[in-house]
Amino acid sequence: MALKTGIIGAGRIGTIHAENIARFIPQASLEGIADIKLTAEQEGWAKALGARIVSKDPADLLKDSSIEAIVICSSTDTHADFVIAASEAGKQIFCEKPVDLSVPKVKEALAAAKKAGVKLQIGFNRRFDHNFARIRKYTLAGEIGEVQIVKITSRDPAPPPPAYVAVSGGIFIDMAIHDFDMARFQAGSDITEVYATGAVLVDPEIGKAGDVDTALVTLRFANGAIGVIDNSRKAVYGYDQRVEVFGSKGAAQAENDVPNTVRLFNEKGVAAEKPLYFFLERYKQAFIDEMVSFINAVQGGKPVAVSGEDGLEDMYAAQAAGKSLKEKRPVAVDEIRRAY
Amino acid sequence: MALKTGIIGAGRIGTIHAENIARFIPQASLEGIADIKLTAEQEGWAKALGARIVSKDPADLLKDSSIEAIVICSSTDTHADFVIAASEAGKQIFCEKPVDLSVPKVKEALAAAKKAGVKLQIGFNRRFDHNFARIRKYTLAGEIGEVQIVKITSRDPAPPPPAYVAVSGGIFIDMAIHDFDMARFQAGSDITEVYATGAVLVDPEIGKAGDVDTALVTLRFANGAIGVIDNSRKAVYGYDQRVEVFGSKGAAQAENDVPNTVRLFNEKGVAAEKPLYFFLERYKQAFIDEMVSFINAVQGGKPVAVSGEDGLEDMYAAQAAGKSLKEKRPVAVDEIRRAY
Amino acid sequence: MALKTGIIGAGRIGTIHAENIARFIPQASLEGIADIKLTAEQEGWAKALGARIVSKDPADLLKDSSIEAIVICSSTDTHADFVIAASEAGKQIFCEKPVDLSVPKVKEALAAAKKAGVKLQIGFNRRFDHNFARIRKYTLAGEIGEVQIVKITSRDPAPPPPAYVAVSGGIFIDMAIHDFDMARFQAGSDITEVYATGAVLVDPEIGKAGDVDTALVTLRFANGAIGVIDNSRKAVYGYDQRVEVFGSKGAAQAENDVPNTVRLFNEKGVAAEKPLYFFLERYKQAFIDEMVSFINAVQGGKPVAVSGEDGLEDMYAAQAAGKSLKEKRPVAVDEIRRAY
Amino acid sequence: MALKTGIIGAGRIGTIHAENIARFIPQASLEGIADIKLTAEQEGWAKALGARIVSKDPADLLKDSSIEAIVICSSTDTHADFVIAASEAGKQIFCEKPVDLSVPKVKEALAAAKKAGVKLQIGFNRRFDHNFARIRKYTLAGEIGEVQIVKITSRDPAPPPPAYVAVSGGIFIDMAIHDFDMARFQAGSDITEVYATGAVLVDPEIGKAGDVDTALVTLRFANGAIGVIDNSRKAVYGYDQRVEVFGSKGAAQAENDVPNTVRLFNEKGVAAEKPLYFFLERYKQAFIDEMVSFINAVQGGKPVAVSGEDGLEDMYAAQAAGKSLKEKRPVAVDEIRRAY
Repeated sequence: MALKTGIIGAGRIGTIHAENIARFIPQASLEGIADIKLTAEQEGWAKALGARIVSKDPADLLKDSSIEAIVICSSTDTHADFVIAASEAGKQIFCEKPVDLSVPKVKEALAAAKKAGVKLQIGFNRRFDHNFARIRKYTLAGEIGEVQIVKITSRDPAPPPPAYVAVSGGIFIDMAIHDFDMARFQAGSDITEVYATGAVLVDPEIGKAGDVDTALVTLRFANGAIGVIDNSRKAVYGYDQRVEVFGSKGAAQAENDVPNTVRLFNEKGVAAEKPLYFFLERYKQAFIDEMVSFINAVQGGKPVAVSGEDGLEDMYAAQAAGKSLKEKRPVAVDEIRRAY
Repeated sequence: MALKTGIIGAGRIGTIHAENIARFIPQASLEGIADIKLTAEQEGWAKALGARIVSKDPADLLKDSSIEAIVICSSTDTHADFVIAASEAGKQIFCEKPVDLSVPKVKEALAAAKKAGVKLQIGFNRRFDHNFARIRKYTLAGEIGEVQIVKITSRDPAPPPPAYVAVSGGIFIDMAIHDFDMARFQAGSDITEVYATGAVLVDPEIGKAGDVDTALVTLRFANGAIGVIDNSRKAVYGYDQRVEVFGSKGAAQAENDVPNTVRLFNEKGVAAEKPLYFFLERYKQAFIDEMVSFINAVQGGKPVAVSGEDGLEDMYAAQAAGKSLKEKRPVAVDEIRRAY
Repeated sequence: MALKTGIIGAGRIGTIHAENIARFIPQASLEGIADIKLTAEQEGWAKALGARIVSKDPADLLKDSSIEAIVICSSTDTHADFVIAASEAGKQIFCEKPVDLSVPKVKEALAAAKKAGVKLQIGFNRRFDHNFARIRKYTLAGEIGEVQIVKITSRDPAPPPPAYVAVSGGIFIDMAIHDFDMARFQAGSDITEVYATGAVLVDPEIGKAGDVDTALVTLRFANGAIGVIDNSRKAVYGYDQRVEVFGSKGAAQAENDVPNTVRLFNEKGVAAEKPLYFFLERYKQAFIDEMVSFINAVQGGKPVAVSGEDGLEDMYAAQAAGKSLKEKRPVAVDEIRRAY
Repeated sequence: MALKTGIIGAGRIGTIHAENIARFIPQASLEGIADIKLTAEQEGWAKALGARIVSKDPADLLKDSSIEAIVICSSTDTHADFVIAASEAGKQIFCEKPVDLSVPKVKEALAAAKKAGVKLQIGFNRRFDHNFARIRKYTLAGEIGEVQIVKITSRDPAPPPPAYVAVSGGIFIDMAIHDFDMARFQAGSDITEVYATGAVLVDPEIGKAGDVDTALVTLRFANGAIGVIDNSRKAVYGYDQRVEVFGSKGAAQAENDVPNTVRLFNEKGVAAEKPLYFFLERYKQAFIDEMVSFINAVQGGKPVAVSGEDGLEDMYAAQAAGKSLKEKRPVAVDEIRRAY
């Protein structure tokens, strides 16, 4: 039986999940879509996808007894409340990252899901990327030996507007949170200490908003490995998403994905195309695969691949990075963890 | 308005087109599916895809006045008759390759479509492959200059059963027909002469069935370029589909697609994954893109990208190759063309 | 003890061998250099390299009793006579390809070496290229299984002057002879039949000189494998020298060598450098390695890696290609072989 | 006129420079070789290379009036004294890195060279690597825009003996000093601050010797760019030496060099060879090119490419890294610089 799902939030990411469930994931059905600012256009789109319930009130999904799982894609500040409400309604939950910018609020949401005995998966889709998942598979198969160094390159093609930056929580919470999650995933271990350095090299307005746009974060993991993340808000050649894991028996490197494999040879040299432009193109299949993973966990009664606790740990690491950048010193993640 | 389509044939390729239209191509709608041997399972699948008409009688699609286009995916020996019937019903036609193994029959079908004034596109999906289309785009943009040499590598991962081979029309009609079409597409010119050499190196049963399983075909094009196709029925590392176009100003080469970009480095060396296994994986997007191209041609009133005449030219080249192999001499395509 | 060598011919290729022996090959010593047109500049160069005998008379090398081996790098029309003279002088012989353009003359030279019991290695340096040698090693190790298809791409960066073309013996004797040798080397088998097609696409003057500048040659080998060579006199992106061997258990492909591995990513795409420009750059190490191989054969009393018979077989294949092109039909190499 | 050189030290690196000068660098001549522990075998080797003076006393080179330049390849603890003595003798100086482990001693040596008005080039050969030099060339040509991030991967194939590690000065002075130089070279700017983290993951004996074998060093440059170096004493797949420069207009990445370009495709996947094993193979040409650069600077009266001051700056950065690792905090390079 297909898992009956309802989606809260019909924005960019909600659209992706809705279309994926409706079209590409036979193991699930799209029962309903709710968005508090639902437009007429969105309503038409939702109905065309076959949604039975199309509403401005998310409660319409929560109170529908046939819906088994809720996919939360609303604005970040509403995630935690919807996790709590969905938990209380006994729904299985897939929640976009982050659960909340406030750690206590995240904890509250996690506690609600735990109390209700429902599953809660966080939307760290990159773990499902064909390249990054393959590296992890090599590691788990012992091909790399003990993990010693994890290197993550994560650069966006263009910066968000400074106005967005100002309320984003900063580069580590807003952008690098994915990379902290990837680092923990690839190391197979939690982060114990971070040291962050950064600079404003892309747009002075980002600096005025109190943030950096270029950063390097050194990591120490509980298992003894070390790692580094490099971030930039602007790689002119497109979305640069690479991972390298180095260990006692070998190393694995993932290159970016490309639109085609053609090389053009001429008098000037050899030309190839840039990497896929941004996350919609690069992680197209990963968005599907994370949802399938969630559905399998729910239907198979198994743990989710990315838990609420993962989201919390990623948040701690991101906050430690922010503190490290500000105070110009290495910060133990435990220093953050204990503060709550 | 979405183009209303009906599909004849619910086998492997019919399934692909039906699911593509139903799920991925908003410009078209799947109105009906007919298969003379429709199973209960296929019926359930067709209905789940939203087909209004699900029938064992293709005539049910042809006589439905709302259906605008027919996609012919039935067995090869029925293609031409369905082209004729669909033409007479005034439907736009997408027909899987080949139209028929008999040239007169192909001509009859083409004439019917022409007389009816309907479009007829043949399913040479590889022209829509992201890599091969990119090469052609480079050529058309003048980046390669005058095309001088076209090289096509086309190897299947595993041979079909010898019983199939015996009725397939031989490696050139059955397998290399795609490559003749690709050669004409990339050269931007018809083939004037072929010389084929071949061997039975994969499976002696194929030889007993009167065919070869490994072949090299040298081509001369009307525009003066030359080319070569190499075929094998069995590449143990998977589907090997590469194209290289060499010209006065440069060259373009396409590599195979891969499941991921990861390289594993260890004491033994560097390992990467094999190319995508077979055509379902490799040409997944190309099947969608050829259908979108057909729909655009119909709705935009423009010529189709791969015409019935293309199919006929490809057939001539394939027959010339078969004759060349048999008679151990270069054969002018015109020798075949004039024979009909 | 270092092998005492004398070099006949101080042109481009003689210079390479002389410098390689003097500088990079401790197993050999450069005793003398002779060139019938020796310039003062060449004399200075030869002496600076430490040559004891520097002369306009090659006989000075042949009659020097301490010289053990002669490296023949003079003009093609003198090769055979020097092979005969060196044989009669009891010298070991390394002779640049081809031994002669006339088969009877080649046979005469080979007979002389045989009669004298001296070794005779032909300068098919490409067998020693790191890439092509690696492919052969894979084949010999059984990694490719039975060889089924051999593909050779061999394109020069720029055509020779038409005046040279007119006396060169044609593209197959002058240029593709290396490729016929490579084909036989990689197939591990002699060529039994060739079919050549060609065109004048680079320079009409080459056509006026009675030759083609672009060619495709289909090969059949004695062991059942098939192959293809593609040649162009002008690849604007530089020297294109690639080999692919396909077999029952796998395939091996060699890419061109490059001046550096850097890729530049920017808004326009990804750029890399062209292949190494021409044979001096590409086969720099191969010229050294072939000489070391010759020295090892002489000093170790083992057969040379590329025999006079190899040179003869390559010549037969090249002549068969020329005849095939002219007569527009496949030509059995035996047809050429028996004609002598 | 060839530059007359004398080499002090006939160990591994002295051998490389001696053979390069004698064989591959016509702009220089090898006049003499001195080594205080000269063996009979070394003596024979030196004479075979054509050295006029072969001695156990380096003073024999310094007092020979015809020798113009001294190449110092002796043990590290003697470098500075030989720089001083050679300066006083009025010789041009090429000195292997580091000049000394003690900053005051380095300063003394630099002052001596300055006072004598002789050139002093330090042996940071990697700047001359074809790949890394190409990246720098792109940057200087403006192709990368403003440099924002410099990433250096530098991993050895196998660790030195722990006994060596104990006296080596630690991983940053002994191994990463090359990487600090490369970082400064690629950034085109001095390092202002470093943060080093490290671990003992390769060999516990290295830890007992008070060092780490795996490290990450974050860098800040005077021009605002940031950077990271990752080091390991043991990459089982060989010498891993890569550089990436990322900037406002693009990025350039260098891959490792490989012994050949062959890829083997079979049922298991695609295999290629490991990078070149170690520095002798990887930097073979770079050793030649740095010496040619030195000779050109001497003969052309131009500044050397890698000055004594460069060596000093690299030393400061390495010491700052050592201090950062020990004190677990970011360390300003100026803190080190001012301490002297």
